[in-house]
Amino acid sequence: MISEVRRLLDEKKYRELRDLLCDEEPADVALLFDKFPKDEVPIMFRVLHKDFASEVFVEMETDLQQALIEGFTDRELSDIMADLFLDDTVDIIEEMPASVVRRILNHTDTERRRQINKLLNYPEDSAGTIMTMEFVRLKTHFTVADAFKTIRRQGVEKETIYTCYVTDEKRVLLGVVTVKQLLLAEEDTPITDIMIDDPVFVHTDDDKKDVSLAMSKYDFIAMPVVDSEQRLVGIVTVDDALDVIQEEDTEDIEMMAAITPSDKPYLKTGIFETWKNRIPWLLILMISATFTSKILTHFEGSLATLPILTAFVPLLMGTGGNAGSQASVSVIRALSLGDITMRDFLKVLWKEGMVAILCGLSLGIVNFGKMYVFNDVNRAEHGLEVSLAVSLVVSIAIAITVIIAKVSGGMLPILVKRIGLDPAVMASPLITTIVDVLSLLVYLGIAQTILAYFGINI
Amino acid sequence: MISEVRRLLDEKKYRELRDLLCDEEPADVALLFDKFPKDEVPIMFRVLHKDFASEVFVEMETDLQQALIEGFTDRELSDIMADLFLDDTVDIIEEMPASVVRRILNHTDTERRRQINKLLNYPEDSAGTIMTMEFVRLKTHFTVADAFKTIRRQGVEKETIYTCYVTDEKRVLLGVVTVKQLLLAEEDTPITDIMIDDPVFVHTDDDKKDVSLAMSKYDFIAMPVVDSEQRLVGIVTVDDALDVIQEEDTEDIEMMAAITPSDKPYLKTGIFETWKNRIPWLLILMISATFTSKILTHFEGSLATLPILTAFVPLLMGTGGNAGSQASVSVIRALSLGDITMRDFLKVLWKEGMVAILCGLSLGIVNFGKMYVFNDVNRAEHGLEVSLAVSLVVSIAIAITVIIAKVSGGMLPILVKRIGLDPAVMASPLITTIVDVLSLLVYLGIAQTILAYFGINI
Repeated sequence: MISEVRRLLDEKKYRELRDLLCDEEPADVALLFDKFPKDEVPIMFRVLHKDFASEVFVEMETDLQQALIEGFTDRELSDIMADLFLDDTVDIIEEMPASVVRRILNHTDTERRRQINKLLNYPEDSAGTIMTMEFVRLKTHFTVADAFKTIRRQGVEKETIYTCYVTDEKRVLLGVVTVKQLLLAEEDTPITDIMIDDPVFVHTDDDKKDVSLAMSKYDFIAMPVVDSEQRLVGIVTVDDALDVIQEEDTEDIEMMAAITPSDKPYLKTGIFETWKNRIPWLLILMISATFTSKILTHFEGSLATLPILTAFVPLLMGTGGNAGSQASVSVIRALSLGDITMRDFLKVLWKEGMVAILCGLSLGIVNFGKMYVFNDVNRAEHGLEVSLAVSLVVSIAIAITVIIAKVSGGMLPILVKRIGLDPAVMASPLITTIVDVLSLLVYLGIAQTILAYFGINI
Repeated sequence: MISEVRRLLDEKKYRELRDLLCDEEPADVALLFDKFPKDEVPIMFRVLHKDFASEVFVEMETDLQQALIEGFTDRELSDIMADLFLDDTVDIIEEMPASVVRRILNHTDTERRRQINKLLNYPEDSAGTIMTMEFVRLKTHFTVADAFKTIRRQGVEKETIYTCYVTDEKRVLLGVVTVKQLLLAEEDTPITDIMIDDPVFVHTDDDKKDVSLAMSKYDFIAMPVVDSEQRLVGIVTVDDALDVIQEEDTEDIEMMAAITPSDKPYLKTGIFETWKNRIPWLLILMISATFTSKILTHFEGSLATLPILTAFVPLLMGTGGNAGSQASVSVIRALSLGDITMRDFLKVLWKEGMVAILCGLSLGIVNFGKMYVFNDVNRAEHGLEVSLAVSLVVSIAIAITVIIAKVSGGMLPILVKRIGLDPAVMASPLITTIVDVLSLLVYLGIAQTILAYFGINI
């Protein structure tokens, strides 16, 4: 495909190029353009049919869109802007630098500019920011035939026609009717007879992720959005819900790995920008880890008496960290999917507590057996008693650390959400750092107690 | 809502109960049923209108579905089964124990049983397992009016009518026509005039996640699925694509935290089952961490000369682990979203390499400053020279460990994918364990070299 486009472009066979490109899906053409030098994209873009060109434009990455806009004549810009759906225009505007935004708004008619400004003013991550105002509105006195007439007249410009909305004269949402219902009904049926009363809806201020999860739960292809007075102001379509879910999952995953979320694809994020997204948490966690060196320095004397004890510190910390991550990540994901809410605190505590005890015991026992069988604390060198005592200390410390790690890993995300932060910050790296400190204290405390019991003073 | 249902149930006001429940969305009724004792659910279920009952049934959790099926009379089971969409039936069957499956299949008519068995035989996680065979098929000689007649006749039983498929007499997929196109065309237009030729399609064996991502990319509400001879055998609808994306993301997140993925919600997984999903990786990682104790034991003599060196081991390992997780998780997510493929190996290497150097240098420098300012290696106790030397060792070790961690964290997921495994296994816990071992070796190596330079032999 690329080589074919290359050839047609070089031979200036633009008509054939148009036929070739316009047969593809817009998303594929956008991906293809990304593989060509930026100065050739405007040429290819201009050969496309107008409507198709707008569809391709929407699918492009931000950097290519910006390059194109900057190269457009005023006329071209106006044409493209008039063709775009409202929610797509807002998405594009949100990513562009101020100078480009000004130029776009200058080439948009007044009514549309008003709508764009309204959408831009909804709170970040709210349903208002992803909704479109282009839906089919039906009046209460309509029959099925009237509804079809409206759809045929307005349909071309609407993002979806398959779900239509019945509102009263104050635009308050009264019901929903699908094209499927309309097709299966008689022409003269009043739409109020077949519409779904009291439909599910969301508010403009609702979180866009909750809206998307609700659409998934109800299997909707469009969700009505109302303002504080229940007036229908827009709809969210399922393709946008899909995008939101993928973006939010990526954001969760990045936060879980201590990365500041960015909404650009991996290869589109520059080296310096990637560094900026990663370094803050690395610094915070590195500084926090200073506690571990303080503790170890403090116990330096004790550890010098029996240096073999330090050999098991990384093992202990690693196991504790892994156990804690499992719990925190499970709870963060469950919170994110809405499977649990803050009210399930006690259920989570009970479950993580029981799992923690099971995991702690199994790991402690296996570790003791392993240390004995592989003679990890050399019996010939240290004597049988010390060897057994140290193995016991390490194994008990593992069991207790795992229990602490799992319970705090399970609880902290809920507490963090309680105080209004994103629970995903409480994932692996932060939990691991907290568990590192706790496990050291547990380990050294147990060592002193048990070894004293064996008559070994450290 | 719950208290109202409770009251109507206690007062045996079943007609009012039906009116109340049937006004809600099926997914909400399913959630509501989950909050009642299992022996009361059949009573509530039986008051529902038949069609609505099937919709509620599909939305229930597996345990409740099973309890209901076991309580159904043969007649009730046949009725429900006849009402379900094919893909939903297959989903339910896949979760049920063998005895229940036998009973379900015994109450399904022969043709449908044949279709169910066919769907059950597609490879795990393939498009075949999530598609439905209930779509509207149009013939090439149809006009728009014929198409509407077909939709009106067959539509009630089809999962979506908004995209219809044009096939030849051998059922080979020729084109796609949407109801929007049909509504905007004249009655006597041949559908071949308005249909989209050469539509995008997937094969029955394609991975269900790739299919869902493709639907998201193209903004489709249904994707046609063909067999090896390009015959149309089914469609995947967007609600199922949404579910697949959420499930696969949950699976990735669980694997990244070293948890064996399960497809049950958090609170529906029992304590013992949760233990079973978490313990294998904890054991493997604990046993692997034995390397760290072997290395530390091996260097016990050197470390005894300058015990302060051990105090920085956890700091070093923690920072290396976090740096590695960031890289591995970024690359795993990019692979999962299709943003990068194995062919981008060199681009990833370059990017992670440069980011690694930037992060390594910044962390090393900040750490040196911090150790100096906070006098981490007490100058009064150890002397200025040793204090500076140890700070230098730790800082250089951090820089090198971070670079190794990021590069291996970025590369290993791609290599793991190359050999056909899920890259998500190469996330934080495994990378951390590998980095732990490498960082120790780097640290002790650098310590010996630099300290020797300062005339300190360890």
